[in-house]
Amino acid sequence: MGRDQFRYHFPLRVRFAETDMQGIVFNGNYLTYTDTAVTEYFRHLNYPYQELVKDGFDFVLAHISCDFRGAAYFDETLEVHTRVAELRTRSFVVEFEIYREGEAIALFNATSIYVGIDPATKRPTPLPEKFRRVVQAFEQLP
Amino acid sequence: MGRDQFRYHFPLRVRFAETDMQGIVFNGNYLTYTDTAVTEYFRHLNYPYQELVKDGFDFVLAHISCDFRGAAYFDETLEVHTRVAELRTRSFVVEFEIYREGEAIALFNATSIYVGIDPATKRPTPLPEKFRRVVQAFEQLP
Amino acid sequence: MGRDQFRYHFPLRVRFAETDMQGIVFNGNYLTYTDTAVTEYFRHLNYPYQELVKDGFDFVLAHISCDFRGAAYFDETLEVHTRVAELRTRSFVVEFEIYREGEAIALFNATSIYVGIDPATKRPTPLPEKFRRVVQAFEQLP
Amino acid sequence: MGRDQFRYHFPLRVRFAETDMQGIVFNGNYLTYTDTAVTEYFRHLNYPYQELVKDGFDFVLAHISCDFRGAAYFDETLEVHTRVAELRTRSFVVEFEIYREGEAIALFNATSIYVGIDPATKRPTPLPEKFRRVVQAFEQLP
Repeated sequence: MGRDQFRYHFPLRVRFAETDMQGIVFNGNYLTYTDTAVTEYFRHLNYPYQELVKDGFDFVLAHISCDFRGAAYFDETLEVHTRVAELRTRSFVVEFEIYREGEAIALFNATSIYVGIDPATKRPTPLPEKFRRVVQAFEQLP
Repeated sequence: MGRDQFRYHFPLRVRFAETDMQGIVFNGNYLTYTDTAVTEYFRHLNYPYQELVKDGFDFVLAHISCDFRGAAYFDETLEVHTRVAELRTRSFVVEFEIYREGEAIALFNATSIYVGIDPATKRPTPLPEKFRRVVQAFEQLP
Repeated sequence: MGRDQFRYHFPLRVRFAETDMQGIVFNGNYLTYTDTAVTEYFRHLNYPYQELVKDGFDFVLAHISCDFRGAAYFDETLEVHTRVAELRTRSFVVEFEIYREGEAIALFNATSIYVGIDPATKRPTPLPEKFRRVVQAFEQLP
Repeated sequence: MGRDQFRYHFPLRVRFAETDMQGIVFNGNYLTYTDTAVTEYFRHLNYPYQELVKDGFDFVLAHISCDFRGAAYFDETLEVHTRVAELRTRSFVVEFEIYREGEAIALFNATSIYVGIDPATKRPTPLPEKFRRVVQAFEQLP
């Protein structure tokens, strides 16, 4: 898609502990990167995760599809471009593209589906109005 | 698909360190589980990863698509059912289903694509004859 | 100390995800190994962690001192020798030595102090009688 | 010791993936924090790790002794205060104290010993002159 399709990105630096014996970031650590980026995304929208949970809403990862296009190395600065691409009744779709700082081609991209749950009962629940409004306003979604 | 579609599974017990504050296995750790299961799969086929690399072949994860259907908890025994579902010219497809011991419904499933590389140059390379033969024989693939 | 000082060891195989770009197990992962070994130790003593918590007792790591004497590599089988070396009023001392399978010299050793807590209040609590008895019997402690 | 004994600290925010089912940062992750802080410390001293390796010097963790005094929670900002406390012939001592932002009492402290090695041979090697000079100047060590 390209960087210009995203209104937010989260910068992070690759830690030594995140590399593996091939000298690159171990694949499972990309899910830590996308998870952390979602937390930062909602903070950026002024609706931090903790507040959202206080408002009676939480969400869990139901699906993720990842393409590994290039390798990331120790101490590099990565940009985790993140956006909510779609709001459904009980779930929402998040797209990610990870770029090495200053590069035009993403080294990783992923699409996730998060399902809304009630933090008390852990049962699926529709996305609350406030959540929808905050995301729609930021992403200019219909 | 169901357990009976798999000729191999790798058993593992969930470690405390793999759980998160929701009390369940953190999603990124499933990629450690599938990665470990692939290593064990090739050992089970009598063609362990180290030997394969000595023979001039290695592979890297190019794609993974994961469905999180249920949660896994500390100290549970999981079975990572694993099979090579397809051999292509330069890549192969692996399917995974993770079951809680004794249960009929998978709590996680995933499909991965691994691309063959030359360990020396790290460039893509066709799957070697021996690799194909070993997998075909075990999985009864065409 | 040497293997013969331990009545229990937990075997584990190094996962690819546990290595770092130096090609060896990342140091922080040894704390996952010792933590997992403690869980297995109490299972071996027929007093598994979950039962212990049901009985109103839990414990947290207060101190660990680690010596890294050698490196561990991908796919090696390690033995995490584990013993409770001392029972105090509100804490207990655990000693660990990690050996590569079949080797005489430990590549890692550590001493931990765990503090007893009440699982409900999270406040320090004396070690319960049953816990003391089970450990004393196994380790032949005074 | 207290914050005022340190000339450098590295700020970090606790990731969801770093918590465990007790709702706190898993103990092994503190070694990722201290490891990352050492990388940032040398960058702060204008002698980044990569340059140091190019100059023919590397170091490995030989010992760490950790005290866990309090818990850290998801999304908190921590400060990893870091200093080289002693330069020996072939090793150096690093002290760490981790504070929750704005708090006076450390929730974690540790002392590490790193041994100098030759990156090519992996054999122990004396600390090079440049390394000593850079650290001495910053820490005002004798």
